[in-house]
Amino acid sequence: MPMPIPGFTGGLLDRADALRHDPVALSAKLDWRARLLKLDGLVPDVEDGRLAWTSIADLPEEAEVILLGLDAQDRAHVAALLPASGEGTTPAMRSPALMTMLATLEPGEAATYAAARSVLDWHARHRFCARCGSTTHLFRAGWGRQCDACYTEHFPRVDPVVIMIAEHDGRALLGRGKGWPDGRYSALAGFLEPGESVEEAVAREIHEEAGVRVSNVRYVASQPWPFPSSLMIACTGVAEDDAITLDTNELEDAMWVPRDLVRAVLAGEPGPFVAPPPYAIAHTLLSVWAAEGR
Amino acid sequence: MPMPIPGFTGGLLDRADALRHDPVALSAKLDWRARLLKLDGLVPDVEDGRLAWTSIADLPEEAEVILLGLDAQDRAHVAALLPASGEGTTPAMRSPALMTMLATLEPGEAATYAAARSVLDWHARHRFCARCGSTTHLFRAGWGRQCDACYTEHFPRVDPVVIMIAEHDGRALLGRGKGWPDGRYSALAGFLEPGESVEEAVAREIHEEAGVRVSNVRYVASQPWPFPSSLMIACTGVAEDDAITLDTNELEDAMWVPRDLVRAVLAGEPGPFVAPPPYAIAHTLLSVWAAEGR
Ligand SMILES: [Zn+2]
Ligand SMILES: [Zn+2]
Repeated sequence: MPMPIPGFTGGLLDRADALRHDPVALSAKLDWRARLLKLDGLVPDVEDGRLAWTSIADLPEEAEVILLGLDAQDRAHVAALLPASGEGTTPAMRSPALMTMLATLEPGEAATYAAARSVLDWHARHRFCARCGSTTHLFRAGWGRQCDACYTEHFPRVDPVVIMIAEHDGRALLGRGKGWPDGRYSALAGFLEPGESVEEAVAREIHEEAGVRVSNVRYVASQPWPFPSSLMIACTGVAEDDAITLDTNELEDAMWVPRDLVRAVLAGEPGPFVAPPPYAIAHTLLSVWAAEGR
Repeated sequence: MPMPIPGFTGGLLDRADALRHDPVALSAKLDWRARLLKLDGLVPDVEDGRLAWTSIADLPEEAEVILLGLDAQDRAHVAALLPASGEGTTPAMRSPALMTMLATLEPGEAATYAAARSVLDWHARHRFCARCGSTTHLFRAGWGRQCDACYTEHFPRVDPVVIMIAEHDGRALLGRGKGWPDGRYSALAGFLEPGESVEEAVAREIHEEAGVRVSNVRYVASQPWPFPSSLMIACTGVAEDDAITLDTNELEDAMWVPRDLVRAVLAGEPGPFVAPPPYAIAHTLLSVWAAEGR
């Protein structure tokens, strides 16, 4: 089957890296044609499946500009970074309402939102220099901050996360985190750590969370996940055996699900679990795996 | 061909995540059997292809402990984090001498060093809270820092980097950065940004640096790269055409190299370029690509 397009991918803006290094050229692009992303905090305004934009004339006076990119008509698209406030430094986490709204977006629109959200949130939580504790200022058109005292340059974080299914004898290992929606099971996941490869992180996480050893780790797909700023790397691995030893700090439950049942659940039929939503790469991963071995 | 084992992978220590959350159990492991990594700054002491370790009794009084993991005999292996000093906050970058030393290590040893180096360096450059500017303290056995004032938890960074060759008509696009060793050409590379997938970052970077459009991006392998803490994600992509438009801020040169010449250079024969070293994933990537299409 063709690879389903992962959620939060397919953005259409050209990030225009050169403009980030050229304040004069950037300034020339911030004219009456430039478009400002409409946001209430970190919640987008969505109209007919598309992100809403307004004129850059609506930019609040105290706001700074983050260049999201250029569209096919060479118009700058930007987001506004507001000054820190007591509450503003704690961005809203993803709410069910937000996720429902994002699910209505046309392909590519959620990708633009993901980039904007991750960078805005990074600024909000990184106003100070981790090296010396001094204040920092925005630079590179919003794609970095520089220390006012020691001049160290800081760049937005992207945290790699591995998300994976172990497979054994035509069955996939799915787990359930605490506080998840009723019946929801999904691929296991965890942050990749310094000093390990994707393949090693996959094996370590499955062993830590479920006590299962895997080998033959295979990459399937990736997506950005803007809560707050992860790179989800989806993989499969082949389990040595099917004995599960649950880490109850991480998972509430885990189970092996046969391929035909995964396929049925993804097709909307009743089954032993509720599938992850389509915009999550776990859905892509399960779809790809379920379509194999027919 | 079987996938060559990427450099800096294959570490044999169990990271023992549970111990990071259990100070009492961790403390019990830090007994006379525990091993302390011998480091001079960030330079390891290497003996007969292996990292050198000493007794934890040699831990400097003012040092803090970073748990690297447990070996097969359940012995804790740790690294010492020394207090910040004026110079200590600027860790030595990789020198040719260090890289030569790492190249002599047995498989797996460089992986242990990579984890230690990345985490030590992260502490040195992240003594303060990026959220509020206050001091922070080490927690989770060295795998995090927590703010003394606002209690925000901070975790070591891993920066995903895409590294890739565009292919066109049996030739690979290789580039040459400024200041590289004479004749060295390698895969193009760049940091993955918030809001993009691996596949999108690959396409963006190749277009930015060489003006070449690619599709059908395929994942090949990954490795940690501890200078200071990247996850290298190696891919190939299929170029639409072979016209190169060089970004001279990024690259000094780029060229298309036929598969048989890549194969010859990797086999040690003379050719139009000097190959990247074996511990770099670019070498793995070129080896895999060169072996295809025979
Ligand atoms: Zn500073
Ligand atoms: Zn703080």
